[in-house]
Amino acid sequence: MAAVKKLINDPQTVVAESLEGFGAAHPDVVAIHRDPWFVTRAGGTSAGKVGLVSGGGSGHEPLHGGFVGAGMLDAAVPGAMFTSPTPDQIAPALQAADAGAGVLAIVKNYTGDVLNFEMAAELADDVEVRTVVVNDDVAVEDSLYTAGRRGVAGTVAVEKIAGAAAERGDDLDAVVAVAEKVIANVRSMGVALTACTVPHAGKPSFDLPDDEIEIGIGIHGEPGRRRIPLAGADEITELLLTPVADDLGLTGGEKVLLFVNGMGGTPASELYVVYRQARALLEGRGVEVSRSLVGNYVTSLEMQGASVTVLRLDDELTALWDAPVHTTALRW
Amino acid sequence: MAAVKKLINDPQTVVAESLEGFGAAHPDVVAIHRDPWFVTRAGGTSAGKVGLVSGGGSGHEPLHGGFVGAGMLDAAVPGAMFTSPTPDQIAPALQAADAGAGVLAIVKNYTGDVLNFEMAAELADDVEVRTVVVNDDVAVEDSLYTAGRRGVAGTVAVEKIAGAAAERGDDLDAVVAVAEKVIANVRSMGVALTACTVPHAGKPSFDLPDDEIEIGIGIHGEPGRRRIPLAGADEITELLLTPVADDLGLTGGEKVLLFVNGMGGTPASELYVVYRQARALLEGRGVEVSRSLVGNYVTSLEMQGASVTVLRLDDELTALWDAPVHTTALRW
Repeated sequence: MAAVKKLINDPQTVVAESLEGFGAAHPDVVAIHRDPWFVTRAGGTSAGKVGLVSGGGSGHEPLHGGFVGAGMLDAAVPGAMFTSPTPDQIAPALQAADAGAGVLAIVKNYTGDVLNFEMAAELADDVEVRTVVVNDDVAVEDSLYTAGRRGVAGTVAVEKIAGAAAERGDDLDAVVAVAEKVIANVRSMGVALTACTVPHAGKPSFDLPDDEIEIGIGIHGEPGRRRIPLAGADEITELLLTPVADDLGLTGGEKVLLFVNGMGGTPASELYVVYRQARALLEGRGVEVSRSLVGNYVTSLEMQGASVTVLRLDDELTALWDAPVHTTALRW
Repeated sequence: MAAVKKLINDPQTVVAESLEGFGAAHPDVVAIHRDPWFVTRAGGTSAGKVGLVSGGGSGHEPLHGGFVGAGMLDAAVPGAMFTSPTPDQIAPALQAADAGAGVLAIVKNYTGDVLNFEMAAELADDVEVRTVVVNDDVAVEDSLYTAGRRGVAGTVAVEKIAGAAAERGDDLDAVVAVAEKVIANVRSMGVALTACTVPHAGKPSFDLPDDEIEIGIGIHGEPGRRRIPLAGADEITELLLTPVADDLGLTGGEKVLLFVNGMGGTPASELYVVYRQARALLEGRGVEVSRSLVGNYVTSLEMQGASVTVLRLDDELTALWDAPVHTTALRW
């Protein structure tokens, strides 16, 4: 087997070295904690503010460490590549994020993540922890990794909007309610053109012929709805957008956030080609795209592909989306 | 030949469709002009402010359209993929960016770009145009595409810092002087792990065996210094950082901006592994990394690889780097 062609030193140290670089590059925004590894805001959680914690396998950067900072997360817990963080890694992050008002844990719906966050909440029994589970992926109901729908790019919207609610002073019940409202109104679906290679696995996570694409891919390369022959971007976009819009039951006159997310290896120019068509399809349904996000936010290492996420907006969610945020990956 | 595996509809329309998506997603920041295609700030250039214009082949996004906005560029001119914009496309962008105080054209050192910006300045003879040529790539002195060194990721620093000088009210001479100062103090070098495929070419821009990497690659896949067997990230980073630091003549006690740029297809986690080692090497020379930037800013479509850019900072350049910027790709 050829060596894995990556800018790494050793599959066993890539996550740690990457976190060290991340902390050194952004000391004004984040602090890195070792033994166990987790990320907090440089200044910690403000006294009396509800803390927000998320986490999951590494390899999806900037998720979640890139969303730690004012207006969004208080702590993020990175597991090994595509592997859930451990309970004894999550527990101190929950404790670090607690500033007396309790902590909301935002968990993507993968069996390991859900279980380990649960166990961590038991370990950190000095902290009032509430959990929401993000399950925005409409592609499959149950997968290799989940019971129920998977949590994918919609997580960014949950973290941003719940983060803004915590920042304005909402109490734990209210922050949970806002997070649940986002989860109820956000849906996603993705496509892969190529597989990615997890460093310690040393080979692509699945095989995809040169002339086929995988519709409904998960962020770990899990199978989706089906494989189809390579098609044009407009056609592919319609295959992603239609189930998302249908599942949301969008009707004319509604406003949405349209988020086109890159899987890591797709050029920005292509993401905007997808955005253009997704927007046109929504407008064709009479839906107004009032907010937009385009870029690599929830990635699968170097996978080529994209996902389309739609969040139904009302005035409250729009205002919380627009509220100031100061993280390394989102800033306004 | 298999179809090109990309999220596009047609190689001939990808740039236009991408620009349409870009404009639709960010109407608060940019305006898209058709026939010919160029990008300006949504609100135009403020009266009396020096205008900044850059441009070049597409496929390097977010360069340059992603850097249009307050505190940075006034206009950007995207050519076809990896192809210089035409003079009759650049000339109206120079005119649009002129608000009575003249225009600075920031040109990467490629023969076609330099020539076409020169001809455009002649066409737009109602505008006072001054030009600076960015040539930060230390890998090769002359290449297939240039006489003298190529212009690569250091362009971001020139656009940001000259943009801040224009925004604070510097006149054209002063903005030119600041841009030249950045150019004199910025150096870069890159590595490719994989090639990229230009849509209309339909095949990878070069062949790179599975166990070799190209040190000193250009942003169009031009050959660099040499091919070497795949090595660890720390070793590769040293091969990039050492010539950059040597060419700058960095000495102990100096402060720098360290910018690790992704070529498009490399995961963020790997960029931070490179950043970590580049920073350690600079600190080993007694150089202080006082500012940092890590991410995909000057890309080569889906190429896997990275470049390391170092800018020598003084108080003036630091303050201009820190000044507010509001573009789609850089914002603080």
